Amino acid sequence: MRRLSTQDQNFKQVFADLLAFETVSDPELLKTVDQIIADVRQHGDAHVLKLTQQFDRHPAHQFSDLELTQEQLKAAFDGLTVEVREALELAANRVREFHQAQKQDGWTYVDALGNTLGQKVTPLDRVGIYVPGGLASYPSSVLMNAVPAHVAGVPEIIMVVPAPNGELNPLVLAAAYLAGVIRVFTIGGAQAVAALAYGTESIPSVDKITGPGNRFVAAAKRAVFGQVGIDMIAGPSEILVYAEGENNAEWLAMDLLSQAEHDTVAQAVFITPDEALLNAVGDWIEKHLEALPKAEIARTSIENRGALVLVKDRAEGVELINQVAPEHLMLCLDEAEKMAEDIRHAGAIFMGRYTPEAIGDYCAGPNHVLPTSGTARFSSPLGVYDFQKRSSLIMCSEQGVKTLAKTADVLAQEENLDAHARSARYRYQ
Amino acid sequence: MRRLSTQDQNFKQVFADLLAFETVSDPELLKTVDQIIADVRQHGDAHVLKLTQQFDRHPAHQFSDLELTQEQLKAAFDGLTVEVREALELAANRVREFHQAQKQDGWTYVDALGNTLGQKVTPLDRVGIYVPGGLASYPSSVLMNAVPAHVAGVPEIIMVVPAPNGELNPLVLAAAYLAGVIRVFTIGGAQAVAALAYGTESIPSVDKITGPGNRFVAAAKRAVFGQVGIDMIAGPSEILVYAEGENNAEWLAMDLLSQAEHDTVAQAVFITPDEALLNAVGDWIEKHLEALPKAEIARTSIENRGALVLVKDRAEGVELINQVAPEHLMLCLDEAEKMAEDIRHAGAIFMGRYTPEAIGDYCAGPNHVLPTSGTARFSSPLGVYDFQKRSSLIMCSEQGVKTLAKTADVLAQEENLDAHARSARYRYQ
Repeated sequence: MRRLSTQDQNFKQVFADLLAFETVSDPELLKTVDQIIADVRQHGDAHVLKLTQQFDRHPAHQFSDLELTQEQLKAAFDGLTVEVREALELAANRVREFHQAQKQDGWTYVDALGNTLGQKVTPLDRVGIYVPGGLASYPSSVLMNAVPAHVAGVPEIIMVVPAPNGELNPLVLAAAYLAGVIRVFTIGGAQAVAALAYGTESIPSVDKITGPGNRFVAAAKRAVFGQVGIDMIAGPSEILVYAEGENNAEWLAMDLLSQAEHDTVAQAVFITPDEALLNAVGDWIEKHLEALPKAEIARTSIENRGALVLVKDRAEGVELINQVAPEHLMLCLDEAEKMAEDIRHAGAIFMGRYTPEAIGDYCAGPNHVLPTSGTARFSSPLGVYDFQKRSSLIMCSEQGVKTLAKTADVLAQEENLDAHARSARYRYQ
Repeated sequence: MRRLSTQDQNFKQVFADLLAFETVSDPELLKTVDQIIADVRQHGDAHVLKLTQQFDRHPAHQFSDLELTQEQLKAAFDGLTVEVREALELAANRVREFHQAQKQDGWTYVDALGNTLGQKVTPLDRVGIYVPGGLASYPSSVLMNAVPAHVAGVPEIIMVVPAPNGELNPLVLAAAYLAGVIRVFTIGGAQAVAALAYGTESIPSVDKITGPGNRFVAAAKRAVFGQVGIDMIAGPSEILVYAEGENNAEWLAMDLLSQAEHDTVAQAVFITPDEALLNAVGDWIEKHLEALPKAEIARTSIENRGALVLVKDRAEGVELINQVAPEHLMLCLDEAEKMAEDIRHAGAIFMGRYTPEAIGDYCAGPNHVLPTSGTARFSSPLGVYDFQKRSSLIMCSEQGVKTLAKTADVLAQEENLDAHARSARYRYQ
């Protein structure tokens, strides 16, 4: 595993190169996706059914075979083992509790002139949750996307999940049942995104589409952005662990590997001012890479994009962390909370030695959909606020408008907008 | 002007067609913009200078000629007439006061297991404000973009504004002085967006770019989205006025024209259950179109995209409004506040007969950057929240983690993520 020190002569460049990850847009892919969207807009259900039969080898004969009933979701939930059902319920409850604290309310105030100003907050009417099929079909993703929408008060949450060969992960359906999803269509790919964005005979058009997907899904989401809202297009998963003082090196190594096992281009970075700890963590990573079921993926990630970084002191660690703006940040030291005060950019901050990143993926409460690739510099975890929107409220009194109308009149004239100026002038003259 | 009634046989289709406005992406434009971005990334200042000399016919000899000093901004402010200066100050103060109410703070709570959970809120480090040059160079846009960033606590607000032939609107510089802008570069177009997104020798890269611009600017913002955050790509301006009961038809006509004068594709729609009022407003629009300085623009807008719509009753009005999700909504009736409760989608709601939309453009307080083209279904006015972002906080105790780690272990095994399961298991076994 790559070892760096901030004392290396070329550290800045090497570290910057390590972080660089630019997704290249593929014109052929974009063309394919644009065509799928155009065809779904034109032919609706029929085209979605055709592509689902073709790409997913789904045995459906007619479009109605692609919708699940609430009874099927409940049956999936009832069929879980007690252990799994309780784990899923605990996760859903905790995610719901945390997100309830994010819910925003409207407000108004009356200004010194007697005018009422405010902000109204309303939930979206209808949202679409994309859930990948096959191996990456994660029930935790269902909870993390649907629960915030449900807490926001979105009345219609529609889920799409492809069913390759007609097969579905029952745990995904059970999670949908718990999370407040009201309709489920077993479709996927760009055709599912197009159907949600523009609607078909059977699928109502939604206002926003969230959730992870492959490059076809990502390209389709980008293409329909504007017609509907979308969440961020996620890059590869990342973890940055900073440790100091007494620590269990084996635990830290496993925390780093838990991101590396996701994807060959995932990034795991360990930063410490303690050279002995750096070496110990590196050794444990090597050791566990021998036995891990997903060792092949993890090894590629660790070798190509991982690093053990030695810093002079904590201040240097803070500086590097703010440069990376990591998706997941673990601060494993006694003064974790104090250090967190200096962190300006991170998706989620896990503090102390008893807060492994993995609990954040499932059941700590906060969302696991987090800004990647340094976008924590300007964006936030998925949250209830993504499923609410605001309207400004303005109500002037006959007296209160006079000062404002005079001001608007003056400024509108400066901008050569005569109708603006006149429409204001009527109210004070 | 087009007159419709919900009783018309084909009303639904005609009304839907009227609202439809799809921007077509121009492959040649995208290619040009991509090339400009690539060249600015490679050649930095030199290329920005070259394009600024070429496109803006700017007399600059070297790149440093393209930066203004704080003294120049202050001189522009000091040079304003008393009337204009006071109007600008009043506007800035009111916009600041309203936006202060939007500022969000972080929070934490301790759960029943003794774990601390929360949300940290931080401002962005550095943002770029794009201000168009020439005719559409509006000082109000400077305030509406820069003040929310300043209130959010963004330390570095950088403005770009093209200066065709080296000429600038002093009011734009005065507004920048009032709004907390710290650096101003007199550059524009796709080259300015590229410079802000990727940085050059002289221009530091920013985290987010907001502000309106022509189609080159819009295409460049779309292209750099992901590298930096951007605000919405705005469509044409829209106003929807609903009126009932006693109203001054001439005022309402001018309110509708105040959007129509912006752009030939702007949209002004009047809805009422009162046929006499509908006719009177239509007549006043015709009358004022004869004398308005921007009559040519306004007439095209009114004829191509405007409409007077007769509804049966208020409930039908509410339904149409929620279908349109208008950027600007005026509710001119006695029970405006009551009616506003039923409005689910609108950028800004102006209530009562003394609240012309034009005061919202300048000095009411709320932002004038609002979701257009129906995007109020899923997005919000520009606000302080666009310049703040959140990080999740999680800190488990040695005891408190046990239940969570067990749950994560169970669910991670179900998702076949072994390193996740193990990293959780260490903490409870």
